[in-house]
Amino acid sequence: MYRTKTCGELRLADAGTNVKLAGWVQRVRKMGGMTFVDVRDRYGITQVVFDTDLPELFEAANALGREYVVQIEGKVAERASKNDKLPTGDIEIIAKGLKVLNKSEIPPFTIEDNTDGGDDLRMKYRYLDLRRQCVKRNLELRHKMAFEIRRYLDSKGFLEIETPILVKSTPEGARDFVVPSRMNPGEFYALPQSPQLFKQLLMVSGYDRYFQIAKCFRDEDLRADRQPEFTQIDCEMSFVEQEDVIQMFEGLVKHIFKYVKGIDFTEPFPRMTWDDAMRLYGSDKPDIRFGMPFVELTDLVKGKGFKVMDDAELTVAIAAPGCASYTRKQLDELTEFVKRPQVGAKGLVWVKFEPDGSVKSSVGKFFTEDQLKEWGEKAGAKAGDLLLVLSGDAMKTRKQLCELRLEMGNRLGLRDKNVFAPLWVVDFPLFEWDEETQRYYAMHHPFTSPNPDDVPMLKTDTGKVRATAYDIVVNGTELGGGSIRIHDAALQDQMFELLGFTPERAQEQFGFLMNAFKYGAPPHGGLALGFDRFVSIVAGLDSIRDVIAFPKNNSGRDVMNESPSPIDPAQLEELKLKLDLEEEKK
Amino acid sequence: MYRTKTCGELRLADAGTNVKLAGWVQRVRKMGGMTFVDVRDRYGITQVVFDTDLPELFEAANALGREYVVQIEGKVAERASKNDKLPTGDIEIIAKGLKVLNKSEIPPFTIEDNTDGGDDLRMKYRYLDLRRQCVKRNLELRHKMAFEIRRYLDSKGFLEIETPILVKSTPEGARDFVVPSRMNPGEFYALPQSPQLFKQLLMVSGYDRYFQIAKCFRDEDLRADRQPEFTQIDCEMSFVEQEDVIQMFEGLVKHIFKYVKGIDFTEPFPRMTWDDAMRLYGSDKPDIRFGMPFVELTDLVKGKGFKVMDDAELTVAIAAPGCASYTRKQLDELTEFVKRPQVGAKGLVWVKFEPDGSVKSSVGKFFTEDQLKEWGEKAGAKAGDLLLVLSGDAMKTRKQLCELRLEMGNRLGLRDKNVFAPLWVVDFPLFEWDEETQRYYAMHHPFTSPNPDDVPMLKTDTGKVRATAYDIVVNGTELGGGSIRIHDAALQDQMFELLGFTPERAQEQFGFLMNAFKYGAPPHGGLALGFDRFVSIVAGLDSIRDVIAFPKNNSGRDVMNESPSPIDPAQLEELKLKLDLEEEKK
Repeated sequence: MYRTKTCGELRLADAGTNVKLAGWVQRVRKMGGMTFVDVRDRYGITQVVFDTDLPELFEAANALGREYVVQIEGKVAERASKNDKLPTGDIEIIAKGLKVLNKSEIPPFTIEDNTDGGDDLRMKYRYLDLRRQCVKRNLELRHKMAFEIRRYLDSKGFLEIETPILVKSTPEGARDFVVPSRMNPGEFYALPQSPQLFKQLLMVSGYDRYFQIAKCFRDEDLRADRQPEFTQIDCEMSFVEQEDVIQMFEGLVKHIFKYVKGIDFTEPFPRMTWDDAMRLYGSDKPDIRFGMPFVELTDLVKGKGFKVMDDAELTVAIAAPGCASYTRKQLDELTEFVKRPQVGAKGLVWVKFEPDGSVKSSVGKFFTEDQLKEWGEKAGAKAGDLLLVLSGDAMKTRKQLCELRLEMGNRLGLRDKNVFAPLWVVDFPLFEWDEETQRYYAMHHPFTSPNPDDVPMLKTDTGKVRATAYDIVVNGTELGGGSIRIHDAALQDQMFELLGFTPERAQEQFGFLMNAFKYGAPPHGGLALGFDRFVSIVAGLDSIRDVIAFPKNNSGRDVMNESPSPIDPAQLEELKLKLDLEEEKK
Repeated sequence: MYRTKTCGELRLADAGTNVKLAGWVQRVRKMGGMTFVDVRDRYGITQVVFDTDLPELFEAANALGREYVVQIEGKVAERASKNDKLPTGDIEIIAKGLKVLNKSEIPPFTIEDNTDGGDDLRMKYRYLDLRRQCVKRNLELRHKMAFEIRRYLDSKGFLEIETPILVKSTPEGARDFVVPSRMNPGEFYALPQSPQLFKQLLMVSGYDRYFQIAKCFRDEDLRADRQPEFTQIDCEMSFVEQEDVIQMFEGLVKHIFKYVKGIDFTEPFPRMTWDDAMRLYGSDKPDIRFGMPFVELTDLVKGKGFKVMDDAELTVAIAAPGCASYTRKQLDELTEFVKRPQVGAKGLVWVKFEPDGSVKSSVGKFFTEDQLKEWGEKAGAKAGDLLLVLSGDAMKTRKQLCELRLEMGNRLGLRDKNVFAPLWVVDFPLFEWDEETQRYYAMHHPFTSPNPDDVPMLKTDTGKVRATAYDIVVNGTELGGGSIRIHDAALQDQMFELLGFTPERAQEQFGFLMNAFKYGAPPHGGLALGFDRFVSIVAGLDSIRDVIAFPKNNSGRDVMNESPSPIDPAQLEELKLKLDLEEEKK
């Protein structure tokens, strides 16, 4: 045993006791005849004092470098000048012994929350980056959340069942990572995009409450916040309806906030239909930490001679509270914001409702003050508020205004990372129409059950059929979602037909699950939550990368250990594979 | 909600209440005007009664087939003839409603503990096999053990940290599964054989108590009880010595036996050096549920004119208690046993110590009764015991006698699956000499620390250097093992040299970890337990396959979903790969 105490636990009450600590040298400060060494471990930082009374020891302390690994023996003493920023700040160790357990080269960046190391350098030396307390807190949070998720689900009778990582490749959905099989030359495993198939099989097997904190894989071109491997809280239940699933996992989210963040949600989470979410927030994952819902002005603005609005399918506004005072510069910034290619609007109309009752607008010459006041009334704008108005194609305009609303939320400080606003979005459409291929696609997957009320419309009004599908959204981020699955063979056949599958193709792609369903499939449904995302939301972080110990970059590379990497030609030969890089060489 | 109660929870106290159940039809028994339907779910079986008073319902019940999914409404009633084999055997449900939620085709085998389905059929329909209560119990045990492992390690301050599945391929060790990278053509990830590298990095990062229940992968030719993917309880600690690690994980194993099996190990687990284990049991994983340790007779048998023993490096015996009564047939069976190619002995010498004090032996013409009695005395054989003796090359003979000892344990009923005998094996040799390549190999891995006492012998007496490595063995099966790692760069260099690595090759293969070690590596060590193995030991099963939900067969195939399988040529093209199956086609 190299230590009797950690660097985070000594308090004033320990003064006078002899202790042994081990850790890393955070800092050495030489003050005349005294040298102060801050020793850090996972649990905290403790100050150790060396003085000239023990000259050999003093000299050894002065020779210490940053990040040396040391073992300290000494006596706990009350500090003369206490540090109230450290839990151990009331005490220090009067050193009696010092052993250098290992030296360290000078690290390429400082091991501090505010480090001088840039992103790339920190990822290359991730093992040093992980020493920083702010990174460590994220991994501690991740551990605690995983533990509490398991504690909750175990208490509800769920069984965690591991499903395979080497699975069958399926052509539907995102691109699979594949693994060549040496023992079965020419054949490949796939890494699972989710345990969907296996969890539905487990329901057929009668494991009516299943969960797994499962690694999933997608070979996608990586966007800013995607990882080729990610972790999912995957769940499925039998003999349940939508309400049962929602209650169970609302309970899980509440449990986590309670035991991890000390936040007690006593009320049910609000619910919103997909239609309302799109109409009021232009998004299927609205951030409801703040208001500013959309108000449609189309009827009020049409036929008044302003061509932009006359021609537009939709004119829609938000009322930004207290923003009538915005300067020309601020308004120009907002106009620039909506015109950025990522947002894509042609321009922005604004109306200021001044505190004195007067009205100013960028479209003042097309509309009378009374007309503009009518807009304000409909939008619930009060004196001092700013109305921001977009016009155009309905779907596109809603998405643009959604971006603007979030931007206004940021500007007004309404998106506090310490405030959490969960929301269920329900009644998703079952189908999405694709203009290009002129056919319907399943919005979730082909096993999602239609809303029983809408089954009669499946053929007559396909696009309007609602799914028994639900998403849980927190602060404008999709935390997860799920659905009740189809367990009736006839209904499943009808779905495949609507999705344009021939019976042969349906059999080829999904035959395996459908065969299993012949032997008594129970009604079932479930949900999956993005675990990385969940942790990052609770931590108040923007990126999932910060809550993953060893993440990959946007090219799917681990820059720390330089993987992926070429492999031995002998290994390729064993796998009966050849590289086919000709195109590259041209 | 499809049910108000499960099929496992109703008791006599519930009589008179109205309930709703859902589950699978286990059995339909028609007895004149009554039909009894056993309904099964994950929690148990409940009997439901239909009679002619409700003719429509009665008819519907008579039409039910095995494994139909049904919803039952009815009233709980006390049974006339109780079934004390079922927890619900005191009651039955008088049916008032029956809804068929799904039909089932006739399953290919019976869903009973004693099923009529053979191995292959059950693996093909694994989703039906998983319905059997005996299989379900194994997965429930697995869940409970994983949960309790986490509860113990969390309580000891361990953090569970997920390490990547897409890692760097390393040429050392067993064969890696590889994953071609589409975004980095010509390059490959590997699937981890263990998180060894990452857990040592986490120690460098200061996460002094790490664990993970981690998926690991090995592309090996599969022996009977190997799986290409398996699960490991992977742990590492900093600032510890061997004793700290042993204490911590002995605590874990005790915790599991206590909370999962109700077995309280109050004494420390016994420990045995590797030398003793080999000398006394011919194995580094002795089954100490029973005695019969080896007794070496070499000195007593040499020079007596029996050529086999005169020429043998070692003559070694076990005394089988009470087996002097063995018949010629039984003795022949034992001789056949040791001569099987898997064991490989040339023959077996036996000595019977009859209850009347006389001695009989297969080598009676070479040795006097007094000489044989001397053997028996040395071996501690009492009247009525049977001495079984093997001679030959020391290492081979020990392994042969080890097999014979286990066989005798089986024959004598000394290997009770409900008795658990854990054992630490310590002081493993650091190096293994390989005759073929005429060099030393690391018995564990090149980062294993030598016993500090033996460091001076590293160059002079390499083969005798003990490692600071330990295995935990239960009932003759290796549950896991680990070591204290080298954290000193100079010692590590010396190790590489002894293992025949040039500095260049060491840098190429392990440079990444060695670079990390330059920035303050703490003393550290750890251990990994085979989780599948742990569950199968606790369940008293011989195979790990029985505790894996969806295992693969000996060719690495999932016969249920027919993976691995060929993939689309377009996908190969995207990966810049070509199949190279020419050899196959010849």
